[in-house]
Amino acid sequence: MIDFALEPELIELRDRVRTFVSDVVIPAEPRDSAEHGLDGALRAELQEAARRAGVFAPQVPRELGGLGLDMRGMAVVFEEAGYSILGPQALNCAAPDEGNMHLLGVVATAAQRERYLVPLAAGETRSCFAMTEPAPGAGSDPSMLRTRARRVDGGWAIDGRKWFITGAQGADFAICMALAEEGATMFLVDRENPGWRVDRIVDAIDRSFPGGHAEVTFEDCRVTDDAVLGEVGEGFRYAQVRLAPARLTHCMRWLGIARRALDVACDRAIEREAFGQRLGDLGMVQERIAQSVIDIETSRMLIWRCAWALDRGEPARHESSVAKAHVAEAVGRVVDRAVQICGSLGVSGDLPLARMLAEVRPFRIYDGPTETHHWAIARRALRQRERAVGRGEAR
Amino acid sequence: MIDFALEPELIELRDRVRTFVSDVVIPAEPRDSAEHGLDGALRAELQEAARRAGVFAPQVPRELGGLGLDMRGMAVVFEEAGYSILGPQALNCAAPDEGNMHLLGVVATAAQRERYLVPLAAGETRSCFAMTEPAPGAGSDPSMLRTRARRVDGGWAIDGRKWFITGAQGADFAICMALAEEGATMFLVDRENPGWRVDRIVDAIDRSFPGGHAEVTFEDCRVTDDAVLGEVGEGFRYAQVRLAPARLTHCMRWLGIARRALDVACDRAIEREAFGQRLGDLGMVQERIAQSVIDIETSRMLIWRCAWALDRGEPARHESSVAKAHVAEAVGRVVDRAVQICGSLGVSGDLPLARMLAEVRPFRIYDGPTETHHWAIARRALRQRERAVGRGEAR
Amino acid sequence: MIDFALEPELIELRDRVRTFVSDVVIPAEPRDSAEHGLDGALRAELQEAARRAGVFAPQVPRELGGLGLDMRGMAVVFEEAGYSILGPQALNCAAPDEGNMHLLGVVATAAQRERYLVPLAAGETRSCFAMTEPAPGAGSDPSMLRTRARRVDGGWAIDGRKWFITGAQGADFAICMALAEEGATMFLVDRENPGWRVDRIVDAIDRSFPGGHAEVTFEDCRVTDDAVLGEVGEGFRYAQVRLAPARLTHCMRWLGIARRALDVACDRAIEREAFGQRLGDLGMVQERIAQSVIDIETSRMLIWRCAWALDRGEPARHESSVAKAHVAEAVGRVVDRAVQICGSLGVSGDLPLARMLAEVRPFRIYDGPTETHHWAIARRALRQRERAVGRGEAR
Amino acid sequence: MIDFALEPELIELRDRVRTFVSDVVIPAEPRDSAEHGLDGALRAELQEAARRAGVFAPQVPRELGGLGLDMRGMAVVFEEAGYSILGPQALNCAAPDEGNMHLLGVVATAAQRERYLVPLAAGETRSCFAMTEPAPGAGSDPSMLRTRARRVDGGWAIDGRKWFITGAQGADFAICMALAEEGATMFLVDRENPGWRVDRIVDAIDRSFPGGHAEVTFEDCRVTDDAVLGEVGEGFRYAQVRLAPARLTHCMRWLGIARRALDVACDRAIEREAFGQRLGDLGMVQERIAQSVIDIETSRMLIWRCAWALDRGEPARHESSVAKAHVAEAVGRVVDRAVQICGSLGVSGDLPLARMLAEVRPFRIYDGPTETHHWAIARRALRQRERAVGRGEAR
Repeated sequence: MIDFALEPELIELRDRVRTFVSDVVIPAEPRDSAEHGLDGALRAELQEAARRAGVFAPQVPRELGGLGLDMRGMAVVFEEAGYSILGPQALNCAAPDEGNMHLLGVVATAAQRERYLVPLAAGETRSCFAMTEPAPGAGSDPSMLRTRARRVDGGWAIDGRKWFITGAQGADFAICMALAEEGATMFLVDRENPGWRVDRIVDAIDRSFPGGHAEVTFEDCRVTDDAVLGEVGEGFRYAQVRLAPARLTHCMRWLGIARRALDVACDRAIEREAFGQRLGDLGMVQERIAQSVIDIETSRMLIWRCAWALDRGEPARHESSVAKAHVAEAVGRVVDRAVQICGSLGVSGDLPLARMLAEVRPFRIYDGPTETHHWAIARRALRQRERAVGRGEAR
Repeated sequence: MIDFALEPELIELRDRVRTFVSDVVIPAEPRDSAEHGLDGALRAELQEAARRAGVFAPQVPRELGGLGLDMRGMAVVFEEAGYSILGPQALNCAAPDEGNMHLLGVVATAAQRERYLVPLAAGETRSCFAMTEPAPGAGSDPSMLRTRARRVDGGWAIDGRKWFITGAQGADFAICMALAEEGATMFLVDRENPGWRVDRIVDAIDRSFPGGHAEVTFEDCRVTDDAVLGEVGEGFRYAQVRLAPARLTHCMRWLGIARRALDVACDRAIEREAFGQRLGDLGMVQERIAQSVIDIETSRMLIWRCAWALDRGEPARHESSVAKAHVAEAVGRVVDRAVQICGSLGVSGDLPLARMLAEVRPFRIYDGPTETHHWAIARRALRQRERAVGRGEAR
Repeated sequence: MIDFALEPELIELRDRVRTFVSDVVIPAEPRDSAEHGLDGALRAELQEAARRAGVFAPQVPRELGGLGLDMRGMAVVFEEAGYSILGPQALNCAAPDEGNMHLLGVVATAAQRERYLVPLAAGETRSCFAMTEPAPGAGSDPSMLRTRARRVDGGWAIDGRKWFITGAQGADFAICMALAEEGATMFLVDRENPGWRVDRIVDAIDRSFPGGHAEVTFEDCRVTDDAVLGEVGEGFRYAQVRLAPARLTHCMRWLGIARRALDVACDRAIEREAFGQRLGDLGMVQERIAQSVIDIETSRMLIWRCAWALDRGEPARHESSVAKAHVAEAVGRVVDRAVQICGSLGVSGDLPLARMLAEVRPFRIYDGPTETHHWAIARRALRQRERAVGRGEAR
Repeated sequence: MIDFALEPELIELRDRVRTFVSDVVIPAEPRDSAEHGLDGALRAELQEAARRAGVFAPQVPRELGGLGLDMRGMAVVFEEAGYSILGPQALNCAAPDEGNMHLLGVVATAAQRERYLVPLAAGETRSCFAMTEPAPGAGSDPSMLRTRARRVDGGWAIDGRKWFITGAQGADFAICMALAEEGATMFLVDRENPGWRVDRIVDAIDRSFPGGHAEVTFEDCRVTDDAVLGEVGEGFRYAQVRLAPARLTHCMRWLGIARRALDVACDRAIEREAFGQRLGDLGMVQERIAQSVIDIETSRMLIWRCAWALDRGEPARHESSVAKAHVAEAVGRVVDRAVQICGSLGVSGDLPLARMLAEVRPFRIYDGPTETHHWAIARRALRQRERAVGRGEAR
């Protein structure tokens, strides 16, 4: 039955996270000066504060010390966390670790869980997901996978290059996708393994991910059989397991950024006078604010709907594509409008907006560019309509 | 708890309406040749078919012979009905009657119910809602109400002019808003009353409303005390009772039009070839289709959310404003894109799109222009933010 | 040398046309009640008035009784004429006749000139251009031409179907494109020829073209050799001769409509009050007005540039594509914004805007849909860049 | 007479600048690592190369060693220079020096010319224009000027704070606007004057201006009478002298950036394959390229028109407002689309696009936010229409 009510415990948790972000995380923002993501000490400090506030690892199952939220619960809580760019790191629900936890939770063996998932969920380690490759390898089109895994005595040897691998620098382990004879396969590769290295950090405009985005080489990278994550040859299927939820949690966090941007703009519109009026009384400013409210609320609805579908165990490919395409564009518009409302201040470091501009722009590209999602959405719509007409619907 | 599932009975009803529209209403479209809305005979025939199909008056309480849906149920069913421009008339859930039924259901006395609501719900009569006035009277700004009601012996005399009164021509009664000494008051005025007349039918571009939009004069229009709807002086409050739901059911029906437009465009994209490819394989066409899917799905989510809020008894002013502003614009875009995909055919009478263009354009103006909603949304957002900052939220 | 100055005589003529439209044509608008274009009597009356005002046939060479303007002159004057939908017909510079005059002027033999061009230029006859075919024939893609011309004793026989042939109903002659053995060829076909017939008038949303848009059949349509326009097999080349200028003059006239729409909206913004302010003092209204000013001025600049290129004898394919794509979209936006500013009045017949909506919407499709022009523009840009890189430009 | 032809010498110069940018400036881009603008050595080196190439100081009068271009010539040449962010600095036609040269050229005394203009034109000094103040001072609304100049023995004392003063850090002199008793007045203030100081460099997202944007304090800043630029009390009039041309030359340079961005995107679209096709063969990519072509060409036309009006000695307020509002938005869109076409690469430092994003975003705010221009354009349109109706034009 259509319902948008939140359970009282979820409301309580949401408000707790909101207070935590407002009282603890935002005041820490001026100390965020590392080149990529939080530096280790500040990260540890904020995560400890999150533990004390009872808001740590909201998406992690209770048996692993988390709050055990389902996707809908995450939708509500991650949006609050995302209100500060540092929030998701403080709560240990940032990408790519959060998606990796989900994947490991579904696919890992007991031993792998113990070794990789437990410390990751506890915030003791970091991880990366090494799938994307430089052209002409697997970019938007995963079928172009070029990294190879061949069987060697006692295990596997991986060779290939990966690109835009978020968090690789400093990660305790990588989940690496490579093509075995049986098909695409995922491998757990430890930091200590001498067979892989970070070649460089891509100079991307966003800087909220610890470790940045790396170019990585695997060269005769030897792993044992128990480094295989799940079944050999099932890599693409597992990628799907990770894909839709990871894409959606991204949307949740970014929605928080959009809300923050709008609030910053509203503060300015409330305080600042121009041409004899409060900025917020000018029609052009009001229109931008209203459009941003609509962008935020439509985004939230699409996220909730996709979260609900995932909670029902549906693959939710359509729902997650629609959410990603809309939310990424909407968030970009909201931040851009906020900058415009704030004028020169908006493009200066005096407000958090300038940084947000840089953080959200790539979101329209990462996890599938808007255009790729549009393409997928249209093809699905056409197939669906073809079937409906085939069933005899009027035309 | 966040939930997007429909109850099995609602799914069953939705599918029944879909089949009814597909099998009965759409085939009747070529017979829709009256200047405004369905002519009486076709209307009666389709309504009779709807009764037989068990889909008549879905929003009417069961005790009055309807299906007793709440707003969420209406959201689902009205969208299906709206798939054909004739659908809402066939199901007796078209504006303005549907909103008037709602208002009468909440405010009317037992005698008024019997006399006005029962035959209206049964499809035996038509009605109109006479509130809007020509400039400088009550347009977007209801506080400018100029029509007066003064007490006379044994009742009231109403004087004033109304404009864009949908369905006045041919209506069996009007609900007329006028300013008494005690404040705005609603009156039930019968067709036979010689004190009012239709001066002309406005030549508007839409033509799906029976009777069109009329300019109406009330001149020493005498009514008795039992013609007062609800309490004297409470007219604006009742207008609010009608406002949000009526605005929202409009959105529901229009969303159906948008879906139809997209389907027509998809059919064309599937069949037609150009430059050696199926139209639906061209990226520009795909992008338009995807954008329309997103417009439709965000619209539906906002409608459902507002319906849910109304079902909880909330006034839902914010939710209905956001829904109206977004849906009207989104529906307009969807129809426009469909026309573009269909090329010259799209602007010809060979497809239903050209008519849809004319039907949906006014929706961005009726029930409050988008700009007025933007203004209201922004003001609310600014006040809300001011309060949050007052409560101590970080900024 | 870059120059935007108009010669004094051109300014004088422009102002004369403006006065003529304002004093003669606009007052005649309420009498425009024919189903398609002006009825014969009103047309004759307005053309006579135009002759007297010295503004008749501005694009026609002086030796044929016109004012002999070049494309730049036309750009200035046609925009003024287009300010009223009836203006171009009054001045005898409406499509499709105007484009046909241009084509005949370039290609026709002396005898053909005498027989076809002279009376057409004088406003004594009407014509049509029969190229477009129903699917799967020559639509956006002229290479799919299916109408055939075969040599028969003493001439040719034409067989095929044409679609969306503007003005065919009532035309004194058609210029018909058909595929001969030697290639596409143009033929002059008289109204009296029993070999062609109008099958129906397409029920298109625009109604400013005399005769509307027809579906036409050529069936064993016999013409003599002197009915060939230009050389046999050169039809596509001549189509190009007509294409860019005809497309551009369309833009000129439509720009006039946009200016009129903006003026109507400004009048409303000046007079009407809402929420205690003049409409024109509201920021959202101001923004729409400003965006329309920009749309109009960018459109005019692109038109002038293309006109200049054509006057230099360049084919101006790029310039005319860019102009068509931009102007059609811009004009559509301007009219749409004007409607929105005028509210309910804007979608009623009380203002000319509702009709303009219907008149300009097809412009985004006729003469090549915006998408087709985008495609052509992009391909040209890519080729040009490829060549520049090939020449050694930095990248 | 409408003309878009360039004189042969201008074409020759344009091509020379293009070659210079391609061969000299772009190869130097990787060495541009200063925090703000070019470091002194690289600047000197590039300027020397520009002198040798005969492209130095194109806007400077010949008697001062420049090429003596009028505004139309600048339009053509500055666009070429702007193709590299370093180009305008290399040619000594970057803001704010270029605007200051113009102002000094019009207003300065012979002595001031010698002392300030000659070395500035030669590239030996840098300057700044100190007008904007922090809220609640003179921002978008210059009438709020708060910096004061009072007469003291032998001259003036200036007190006040300025904000977003581009290039103040390292400038050899400032042109400071202050309010004297007689009205706003401009003063030339030397670097050595102890009465002013740079308080901080605003951390703005753009970094192409040498010295960045500074916050500056004038505190009992003593200058002699011959430091007054022009007449006392005429400051606002001189600001207008500088305003429109400076705004327009900004547009010219930024248009060059847009062209570069499009070229980078085209290169990518030509080389990169995805989903079995060249990126440039995908409809969605083509649409973005075409829209960028149109944005660039409409921008160029508005710039040329305004340049022509300025060359005629018109104040061109309307033309420069329209140009600024359109070009800033258009350039922003072009760069954004280029980023999207290039995907992850587009938001990385591997291409120049990421930096362009940061450089062009403030352009929609600097020199008057788009909204302020929209407001001015609308007010002018409404006044103009009111006058036309007053003159008796049809409505």
